Amino acid sequence: MIVTCVYVHVKPDDITRFIDATAANHLESLKEPGNLRFDLIQQADDPTQFMIYEAYESETIAADHRTTAHYLKWRDIVQDYMAQPRHGVKYKIIEPNDSSKW
Amino acid sequence: MIVTCVYVHVKPDDITRFIDATAANHLESLKEPGNLRFDLIQQADDPTQFMIYEAYESETIAADHRTTAHYLKWRDIVQDYMAQPRHGVKYKIIEPNDSSKW
Repeated sequence: MIVTCVYVHVKPDDITRFIDATAANHLESLKEPGNLRFDLIQQADDPTQFMIYEAYESETIAADHRTTAHYLKWRDIVQDYMAQPRHGVKYKIIEPNDSSKW
Repeated sequence: MIVTCVYVHVKPDDITRFIDATAANHLESLKEPGNLRFDLIQQADDPTQFMIYEAYESETIAADHRTTAHYLKWRDIVQDYMAQPRHGVKYKIIEPNDSSKW
């Protein structure tokens, strides 16, 4: 089981549009087989900084996410909303160590 | 609802001890009223880098966590395992926007 933390710096004028597009991606991503979580969080002291917390049962399944129609649509929509390129950090899940607890 | 991402750089020789202490804290933290998640993840390309993903129903409830016996025990145990002081970043939860979905 893995998590990718995707850090996104959004242009101030595009915050609402970014949230709308990512909320739609969140809802579709939760339907993917092997998806464990897809949270969207906004930094408390800087509303232009977001993190997407994507948990999947495996690296292969996480890679499949990037071939879905909803991901590709999100990627194209939000491209212009980003103040700089997003970056992801990959993690191995230690706890909860049972996928049924996710 | 809020998330605190706690970033911890652990000394290489203390990784197993850090995981054991934090897994115990994880199990107890899940029992706290208002706790939504308490995940422990380890960076894929650097096993000395960890993140604890702590989600609570409110800032007040998250602050209560830091008064619990299990938190105080964890804080004291892991102090010597850290290569440098840990740091936390606070986030507002955007999605899932309903606490029943956490």
